[in-house]
Amino acid sequence: MMLVDGREADTVSARDRGLNYGDGLFETMRLHAGRVHLLPRHLARLRAGCARLALPYPGDALLEADVARVVAGAPADAIVRLVLTRGDGGRGYAPPRDAKGRRIVALHPLPPPGPPALSVGICGTRLGHSAALGGLKHLGRLEQVLAADEVAAAGWDEGLMLDAGGHVVEATRHNLFFVRAGRVLTPPLAACGVAGVMRGLVLETLAALGVPGGQEPLRYDALDEIQEMFLCNAVVGVRPVKSIAGRALDAGWAVARLRQPLAAAGVAWLA
Amino acid sequence: MMLVDGREADTVSARDRGLNYGDGLFETMRLHAGRVHLLPRHLARLRAGCARLALPYPGDALLEADVARVVAGAPADAIVRLVLTRGDGGRGYAPPRDAKGRRIVALHPLPPPGPPALSVGICGTRLGHSAALGGLKHLGRLEQVLAADEVAAAGWDEGLMLDAGGHVVEATRHNLFFVRAGRVLTPPLAACGVAGVMRGLVLETLAALGVPGGQEPLRYDALDEIQEMFLCNAVVGVRPVKSIAGRALDAGWAVARLRQPLAAAGVAWLA
Repeated sequence: MMLVDGREADTVSARDRGLNYGDGLFETMRLHAGRVHLLPRHLARLRAGCARLALPYPGDALLEADVARVVAGAPADAIVRLVLTRGDGGRGYAPPRDAKGRRIVALHPLPPPGPPALSVGICGTRLGHSAALGGLKHLGRLEQVLAADEVAAAGWDEGLMLDAGGHVVEATRHNLFFVRAGRVLTPPLAACGVAGVMRGLVLETLAALGVPGGQEPLRYDALDEIQEMFLCNAVVGVRPVKSIAGRALDAGWAVARLRQPLAAAGVAWLA
Repeated sequence: MMLVDGREADTVSARDRGLNYGDGLFETMRLHAGRVHLLPRHLARLRAGCARLALPYPGDALLEADVARVVAGAPADAIVRLVLTRGDGGRGYAPPRDAKGRRIVALHPLPPPGPPALSVGICGTRLGHSAALGGLKHLGRLEQVLAADEVAAAGWDEGLMLDAGGHVVEATRHNLFFVRAGRVLTPPLAACGVAGVMRGLVLETLAALGVPGGQEPLRYDALDEIQEMFLCNAVVGVRPVKSIAGRALDAGWAVARLRQPLAAAGVAWLA
């Protein structure tokens, strides 16, 4: 089931600027027990991203109505993907002044759950630095596509991605947290990476629990100093990393500590 | 007139990976006097880009046939845009092993010619560094979209874009060449920017003419040291810059020198 601008459809205009210029944003949301979890956070991120890119935001009400229609009659567990583009436009990069925007809401099956703890490798594909786009979940995801291909070819559960400066930033489809000297940290994303909804919730939850931590860079050559790592996204919640490039990590006290408060905050499938 | 996988259509599957992940490449070509100019160079660049991204390349013959159909009955002067994507795919970054690819060939009107020499400004939007994507004309062009919006708002003819390190790399829809101490230079594009077809032809033409030059970085704080600049792309050919952020530049001997040899090499509309 897919809605394009509120109508059931499985095609879009070939003039869509999302297709032609990556001129749009998206959200990937978890449907569990018939409810789309963290929807207000996803919409808040979209709204903020639209403001940064001067993309038309259709409003919460329209998007909530689309999501409700798409999940009606869906399996209890699934994924809802929401794409906003600038809509149709002529050729040329300059965004039309009267851009109407386009919204695409689609249901996707939940992927197989995967192992409870992840073996991760280090991708050769680096994340580019872009102050204009850092943190945004925009449609131009070729770096992740290339890195995900490396992960599949190597048979890893996931792959860590570095930036050009040698910092570990995120994984191909997860944000990451690491434990160093008793503090729970996640890399800052001003210049690259996607500021995930689950990452935001985890940061808030850790702060509410009084766990020391925050945002700090993680250098690749300092990976050996970390005791623990976990990955997160809105689909799976949090998942401990059991090894990085073959080196075993400690079992996750941070993940264990997060489980109950995250469930209380709406990540119900972790409970 | 638009062909999607060889069929007349104006929509594409909403599952196309070009739309969902920017997973594709494109070419913008000039139709002049009924002929698509520099077509072999455009196809060669596409083929090389497909190899870098492991995108399926449909072969020259299919693309040439699509282009021929699209330009049949077209105005004498127009633009042909050719998009290759990885085609349909499920949700998730990892490219499907059996990706078939998709080709979209569309005719667009030629934009108004614009002034013979350009007044350019400096865009605030910076180009990100990405070793994986540097030089490719991939579908993720949000930085150019934001910069083109600046150009339109400021009323400039074009805008120069810097990278995060403060180097002048290109303009929003042109490559750039500059004259410094009698040498004709263009910035290297290993980490960002689009390695344009016209840029390649200009580099070859300058070498054949025996004009000293090549690829060298241009620092923003050294812009005052350059005597001349011109911009180029496959649609307009070459165009001198008459001022940068209000500072007037010399009239273009380099452009004058290039005009006849470029026309001989197929840039017929400059003659």
